[in-house]
Amino acid sequence: MPRDEFSLINEYFTHRSAKRGDVAMGIGDDGAVVRPMPEHDLVIVTDTLVEGVHFDMTTPPRAIGHKSVAVNLSDLAAMGAQPCWVSLALTLPRMDEDWLQEFSGGLDEICSYYDCQLIGGDTTKGPLTITITAHGQLPSGSAIPRSGAKAGDWIYVSGSLGDAGLGLQVTQNKVSTTGRHLQQVIERLHYPTPRVALGQSLRGVASSCIDVSDGLLADLRHLMTEAGTQAQLELEKLPLSLALTETLQVDDALALALTAGDDYELCFTLPEEHRGRMETLTTHLKTRPVCIGRVANGESGDIQLRYNGEDWLLAEGYSSFNHFPQNQATK
Amino acid sequence: MPRDEFSLINEYFTHRSAKRGDVAMGIGDDGAVVRPMPEHDLVIVTDTLVEGVHFDMTTPPRAIGHKSVAVNLSDLAAMGAQPCWVSLALTLPRMDEDWLQEFSGGLDEICSYYDCQLIGGDTTKGPLTITITAHGQLPSGSAIPRSGAKAGDWIYVSGSLGDAGLGLQVTQNKVSTTGRHLQQVIERLHYPTPRVALGQSLRGVASSCIDVSDGLLADLRHLMTEAGTQAQLELEKLPLSLALTETLQVDDALALALTAGDDYELCFTLPEEHRGRMETLTTHLKTRPVCIGRVANGESGDIQLRYNGEDWLLAEGYSSFNHFPQNQATK
Repeated sequence: MPRDEFSLINEYFTHRSAKRGDVAMGIGDDGAVVRPMPEHDLVIVTDTLVEGVHFDMTTPPRAIGHKSVAVNLSDLAAMGAQPCWVSLALTLPRMDEDWLQEFSGGLDEICSYYDCQLIGGDTTKGPLTITITAHGQLPSGSAIPRSGAKAGDWIYVSGSLGDAGLGLQVTQNKVSTTGRHLQQVIERLHYPTPRVALGQSLRGVASSCIDVSDGLLADLRHLMTEAGTQAQLELEKLPLSLALTETLQVDDALALALTAGDDYELCFTLPEEHRGRMETLTTHLKTRPVCIGRVANGESGDIQLRYNGEDWLLAEGYSSFNHFPQNQATK
Repeated sequence: MPRDEFSLINEYFTHRSAKRGDVAMGIGDDGAVVRPMPEHDLVIVTDTLVEGVHFDMTTPPRAIGHKSVAVNLSDLAAMGAQPCWVSLALTLPRMDEDWLQEFSGGLDEICSYYDCQLIGGDTTKGPLTITITAHGQLPSGSAIPRSGAKAGDWIYVSGSLGDAGLGLQVTQNKVSTTGRHLQQVIERLHYPTPRVALGQSLRGVASSCIDVSDGLLADLRHLMTEAGTQAQLELEKLPLSLALTETLQVDDALALALTAGDDYELCFTLPEEHRGRMETLTTHLKTRPVCIGRVANGESGDIQLRYNGEDWLLAEGYSSFNHFPQNQATK
């Protein structure tokens, strides 16, 4: 692309997103200058979306703009941080004004909603790749680690799991669902909601936290491995949407909820003595965390699955890294 | 790439680079947690390198690792910031241990040299793309802007220009040079030195500053446009290396020095009353800035070129965005 097209591209981003008082210099200089809050730590996260890997030609550009920010704010939420500033590295194969209009619109909407300012970045020519680096702040020393779980802690998730995975299957025509569920699961896939307010409420309350991006089993395993503990899940407590349970048979719905990624709910552990405090703190939130099991001493990183008190086995072909089998049965 | 290869990739970066006391949590959690200095501003910069655009298959991976950090530290230097933390978003087409070893080695060397810690990032599969986001700090309110030049200010550059441009021509077999110059110009192309110490010395001294990444004329024009001023350059003062002057005829050497990018010297403006202070502050540095002209009232963004008092015209075919003409004459 000639340089003047780059200037045009920059225009799509320059006057957008929330204007914060702590941004001394934004887009346009060699770098952005921001004023961190006194007595606060800075949390920095980075996530890349690549065409053909994280989305494809059929994904609406507005959804790509939304999701590229959402996955980063979700990482900030898992640490308990308040989002403040994002920078965007955008690699584009060609100038496409319609695409840019939609992409920047999606990015702007979510940034504005969370009062997070786009402070700069870099636009280059090449295969479509989006890297967002997001910055959040929290009171010094209050970041929620991955490693703090202890035997006896309760395990929670912040909302229903498996919906984004079902959405992916639907867009790939591997599963069909009825009209009223269709919109919901595709929304969850394309427009994930980072649990920002919940994450901040969990500071000093949760003993460990992670966001479910790779699937509950995979992400919970990180928490258990870091803590040297095991997890005991009671699958009948797993929050499942009607969209999921009316589309799939129960074992398939559970398997998807356990292994599919992209839901961006928070999974966290909570000491017994903080249960009341957490419930009080979260009463004003739309998100109501659900207790799904307990941390125990045992083999580090192990996860035991029970359904109504019986051992439950994940069907062969499911794994957290191979999100959905080819021969998935549907109702 | 399967997930376990990603884990392997992360190993190349996890235990590398300087360990700083202000990094509370580094690679391995959802995000990094760092402690900004009280009474300091944070400077954030992002730059992407794409294969086929910023480098090619023949570029040594160690150089790619070095340069991906260097171009970002150069942006920090232009603001006067001290580098602290970098995050890396690496998109790789395949697992290649030799490549990773060299790339991470080059990245590690420059980070360690500047006491800058790699605090995290994201590794994805896709076309080779490297995005670095670098963070620096400086006393609150002391960032050097692009916009502060005033008529009467002196214009400086921090070192010789055109060498990286010559190096590029040499690697593309468009120009040949003698052995003793060959190494030097290819080093300047592949292993640029960000002027970190100089940039920090210029805080409160320079009225505006930019790093020369797109060519002196293009970058100086940014400073003049932002300030609404024009520049008058005396080209006989332009610092040129022996490598450049012994390889090209004088007009071609000057044209390259004015238009070629990738040298990553600083170009800054200095009020008359700060000249002595700047010279005192920079006596202990290896980099000795050279005065090449003066800021004047006139058409905003205009740059007048004189050589020994005579008007000098850039030959047709040269521009800052088309770094070198095809028919370049060589001695």
